[in-house]
Amino acid sequence: MKKVVVIMGSDSDLPIVEKAIATLKEFSVPTEVHVFSAHRTPAQAKEFAENARRNGFGAIICAAGKAAHLAGAFAANTTLPVIGIPVKSSTLDGLDALLSTVQMPSGMPVATVAIDGAQNAALLAIQILAVEDDSLADRLAEMRIANTEKILEKDKQICEKFSD
Amino acid sequence: MKKVVVIMGSDSDLPIVEKAIATLKEFSVPTEVHVFSAHRTPAQAKEFAENARRNGFGAIICAAGKAAHLAGAFAANTTLPVIGIPVKSSTLDGLDALLSTVQMPSGMPVATVAIDGAQNAALLAIQILAVEDDSLADRLAEMRIANTEKILEKDKQICEKFSD
Amino acid sequence: MKKVVVIMGSDSDLPIVEKAIATLKEFSVPTEVHVFSAHRTPAQAKEFAENARRNGFGAIICAAGKAAHLAGAFAANTTLPVIGIPVKSSTLDGLDALLSTVQMPSGMPVATVAIDGAQNAALLAIQILAVEDDSLADRLAEMRIANTEKILEKDKQICEKFSD
Amino acid sequence: MKKVVVIMGSDSDLPIVEKAIATLKEFSVPTEVHVFSAHRTPAQAKEFAENARRNGFGAIICAAGKAAHLAGAFAANTTLPVIGIPVKSSTLDGLDALLSTVQMPSGMPVATVAIDGAQNAALLAIQILAVEDDSLADRLAEMRIANTEKILEKDKQICEKFSD
Amino acid sequence: MKKVVVIMGSDSDLPIVEKAIATLKEFSVPTEVHVFSAHRTPAQAKEFAENARRNGFGAIICAAGKAAHLAGAFAANTTLPVIGIPVKSSTLDGLDALLSTVQMPSGMPVATVAIDGAQNAALLAIQILAVEDDSLADRLAEMRIANTEKILEKDKQICEKFSD
Amino acid sequence: MKKVVVIMGSDSDLPIVEKAIATLKEFSVPTEVHVFSAHRTPAQAKEFAENARRNGFGAIICAAGKAAHLAGAFAANTTLPVIGIPVKSSTLDGLDALLSTVQMPSGMPVATVAIDGAQNAALLAIQILAVEDDSLADRLAEMRIANTEKILEKDKQICEKFSD
Amino acid sequence: MKKVVVIMGSDSDLPIVEKAIATLKEFSVPTEVHVFSAHRTPAQAKEFAENARRNGFGAIICAAGKAAHLAGAFAANTTLPVIGIPVKSSTLDGLDALLSTVQMPSGMPVATVAIDGAQNAALLAIQILAVEDDSLADRLAEMRIANTEKILEKDKQICEKFSD
Amino acid sequence: MKKVVVIMGSDSDLPIVEKAIATLKEFSVPTEVHVFSAHRTPAQAKEFAENARRNGFGAIICAAGKAAHLAGAFAANTTLPVIGIPVKSSTLDGLDALLSTVQMPSGMPVATVAIDGAQNAALLAIQILAVEDDSLADRLAEMRIANTEKILEKDKQICEKFSD
Repeated sequence: MKKVVVIMGSDSDLPIVEKAIATLKEFSVPTEVHVFSAHRTPAQAKEFAENARRNGFGAIICAAGKAAHLAGAFAANTTLPVIGIPVKSSTLDGLDALLSTVQMPSGMPVATVAIDGAQNAALLAIQILAVEDDSLADRLAEMRIANTEKILEKDKQICEKFSD
Repeated sequence: MKKVVVIMGSDSDLPIVEKAIATLKEFSVPTEVHVFSAHRTPAQAKEFAENARRNGFGAIICAAGKAAHLAGAFAANTTLPVIGIPVKSSTLDGLDALLSTVQMPSGMPVATVAIDGAQNAALLAIQILAVEDDSLADRLAEMRIANTEKILEKDKQICEKFSD
Repeated sequence: MKKVVVIMGSDSDLPIVEKAIATLKEFSVPTEVHVFSAHRTPAQAKEFAENARRNGFGAIICAAGKAAHLAGAFAANTTLPVIGIPVKSSTLDGLDALLSTVQMPSGMPVATVAIDGAQNAALLAIQILAVEDDSLADRLAEMRIANTEKILEKDKQICEKFSD
Repeated sequence: MKKVVVIMGSDSDLPIVEKAIATLKEFSVPTEVHVFSAHRTPAQAKEFAENARRNGFGAIICAAGKAAHLAGAFAANTTLPVIGIPVKSSTLDGLDALLSTVQMPSGMPVATVAIDGAQNAALLAIQILAVEDDSLADRLAEMRIANTEKILEKDKQICEKFSD
Repeated sequence: MKKVVVIMGSDSDLPIVEKAIATLKEFSVPTEVHVFSAHRTPAQAKEFAENARRNGFGAIICAAGKAAHLAGAFAANTTLPVIGIPVKSSTLDGLDALLSTVQMPSGMPVATVAIDGAQNAALLAIQILAVEDDSLADRLAEMRIANTEKILEKDKQICEKFSD
Repeated sequence: MKKVVVIMGSDSDLPIVEKAIATLKEFSVPTEVHVFSAHRTPAQAKEFAENARRNGFGAIICAAGKAAHLAGAFAANTTLPVIGIPVKSSTLDGLDALLSTVQMPSGMPVATVAIDGAQNAALLAIQILAVEDDSLADRLAEMRIANTEKILEKDKQICEKFSD
Repeated sequence: MKKVVVIMGSDSDLPIVEKAIATLKEFSVPTEVHVFSAHRTPAQAKEFAENARRNGFGAIICAAGKAAHLAGAFAANTTLPVIGIPVKSSTLDGLDALLSTVQMPSGMPVATVAIDGAQNAALLAIQILAVEDDSLADRLAEMRIANTEKILEKDKQICEKFSD
Repeated sequence: MKKVVVIMGSDSDLPIVEKAIATLKEFSVPTEVHVFSAHRTPAQAKEFAENARRNGFGAIICAAGKAAHLAGAFAANTTLPVIGIPVKSSTLDGLDALLSTVQMPSGMPVATVAIDGAQNAALLAIQILAVEDDSLADRLAEMRIANTEKILEKDKQICEKFSD
């Protein structure tokens, strides 16, 4: 199976990013985790991005806050799909990271998920790997069914408790 | 090669969406184009989404404006990657469509691109197909090189014209 | 009397939604409460919506956060009035849910109330039932009078305490 | 059948409001149209609101821009459902009118539709009347089917024209 | 001296409004304080506004949150200057109250101060009374001088502590 | 009668400001008009502000766009009421000017009106002068009545044309 | 004298950027102009940034729209002051470019000017060069005086035309 | 070496500003610290700004919240580079201070950094001084290398802990 890498722009993003790592491991996707900064370790980021395809990666997840350039910097150096997680910081409620991640210019897409949406970033990476991997697709479908059942169970409890 | 489908929520989105169609055809990706509405043709949307994987699709592109639910509705009915294009409408400058598309709840990612970012949606779909298709990846890399050369050419012209 | 259903997109919305349930019960409106997700239990949501009119409902209240599609999904499957409560989540202060709920395309209205405005959602549902129910209208009017009196009482206290 | 009144805060809102009037007439709902201002004709607005129920109205539609108080002022003087259309004006793209209309305090709901969403305001009013009027409900359902067919027809055209 | 009235839309606004009351009393301006609601006690609000001038008031301060219509409702019923304090509530960080207060239509100005800016509302009212009252103007000028001296004192302390 | 001065930050604001000048002249308020810049002619602005009271002014209207500091700069140098008109410029739809004008720190109020709300700025200035001038107050009340009649006339026309 | 370079992210930014070039030439500052893209010509951008100091540059001006990463990418590769011009594009009125440029993480400042504020970017660069160049500082001061005189002249015209 | 002055609009901004002071001292830049208010001590602010160049300053850092006019007021009275730190206050998450600082009119640039971005303000000031000071430039470069090494160390730790 292709690998997925989860990259955070700062180790302070780890509490957000951990949900992505946990989800990838839940699906037994081989995962690498890095702290790279678009601005402070641009050489390492560039090198990783340029070699990611030949090193067996199938998707790149980047989490960053504020003027979040990390996902864009990776997108510029690989033709692999790059998934961006805008991270909420102490001001502006994540709007700065969202716009900095999603409003990429033509030619350099970043697949952006919700602010702090780390689990969805992992699921999107798995969906990308599953395009050509029916077994992985089946497990995604199973997770969906399990989630549906959880909600139906909660519906039952709440319906009984509150309905007339 | 897997196919890509481009779905618009209304035929008024066609001028935006055409850039996605053109880009997919430029890369010779087999493309289907539809007008489906999350609210007005939910049955058709659901049926298409549920069968998309077995019908040979590898990615689904959805373009919609205002309270843009189209991409989310597709995401709920397939485990294929769903790419959302928020479309700017007559009010709020596209912010409504962006937030309605990107802020998906856990479990249902939508790979969101820039407001009106149709070309990037197509490129992201192609990048997804190219994860397992080296020839497609090579052509993406070639396009990148061509784009770089165009900018270098423009740099040369503008540098000569304006620099002292 | 027609029934009202209160639907939340996730059981985490219950603390907000409880004010709607309490208000409906205060007016002795027969009330059902459900947890349905536009994306995770679309079949159940659709079935409920399609049968709501013939099952004796007069209004549908939907509460959801982030890219809040729940109210719209119900609106697409019923001609009953659907009332949307945008729920504030951890980012963007509820603006995402507000725009996702209120900016519905032509043909599919959602009667949107304030962010976290559960009590008003219930009152709006009661007002809808009261269009043809004078006794219910009278009780709404009585509540208004009681509220007015509460404010007049507070006015008296504060006026005495702070005015010269 | 109960009547519906469409009220605009200024005659400059007429181009927006006309879609609401046309939709109501399309459904043969008896319609009254007024220009009332929450601030400039408060007495007339109050009198109309207080008597609306006994004068045979079932819903009140209010369209206003900027610091849009019109719907709230009507809501304060009637227990009928009041539907608010926030109207976009020359600045802030309608956000001011949206927030002024939707963020009503507890006890005074306004059923808010999209910015400039006049057609949906009319449809919501018709849905409210249709709660107790099966024939009107049937016609709403027919309109839905017609709309679905229009989209399916457009889907057919666009699918043929653009798909490979 | 003309009187000033401070009106809050709900007694929950009192913690904000107290700074306005304190400032008015500091300047010995005769002050009345009320809780009136544009929507729940419209009759009392209207009556107060209509009689305010002949009852000896020179300025009206209104504090309200969310879809803040209070100041506008007073402005509609008096030609006295009405000062609006937008109050921050649990969502949207006060932006809703600001826009609902300041974006008044032509003909009905509300003199809007900062979100939660109760002290400035009081000072503005005093400035209005001071247009024709030189002694009051002198005391405003004295307060300015005192404030300047406080800052110069702080500047001295901080400059000494932190400068090289 | 006290005079009113209308100050614009740039002569490009004149088309907005003209409505303020016209309204003041309609009420025969002695009016002065200036172009002063908080940043480019700070000395002239300061001198005017410091002498405004003794030169017979009763209110100061300042119109400025972008990071609109003009009203605040005047407020810092006079205890007369300063009215701020935020002017919409080529970006951000006037939000920058609104926040720069209204969010003044404690001690320095600016009476802010709507974005581009020049007529209301003039009316607010007249209301301030009218606190101690019953004849001016009467003329404001007459204008209100005339405006009400205009709306009632429009209501009559539109009601006849569109109501069933 | 040190040189200044003006870099645009796309040649479509030229109409905005020309005001910066003109201002630099007006002050006889040796100027270079380039089209570099943070994403499409990252190697050229990096090389230029890394060598800018030793090649005699004293400031770097970067203009870019949408998710504007250009200034940040330069800042990461030089310790020269980098000035960012956020450019307004077809959606969001420049807010995306502003936040992407200004909200840089600690360690990598970008000196951000107003949206489309190209003239100010040039003036800021000149101010930076003028820190150690008294003659340049004198010319900046002269320009200020000339601007002041222009405004005073306009003030005179408008004051005469409109004041009573 | 030229000096840098750090000015805060209120002593309540000190916790934000301390990071700027610490950074300047870390680089042994001679630093002065002041509390000046654009509105409450305009004379002192003006005098400081007018004399700053001849008193040996090379850059001016201004931190202020809300309608932040401080940096602009300094910019109007000096041709030295003025760096603005928008400070987040109790409402609007710093957006008001950001727009009031960055959206300066043509002719008066303020080099704006991120909301609460005090360390970057100091680094920008040092970069400005370093344009003509190679030793200072070398120390900036060394800090960059140290930062890079810190991130690489964290990358190593996190990579080992979380990668498969």
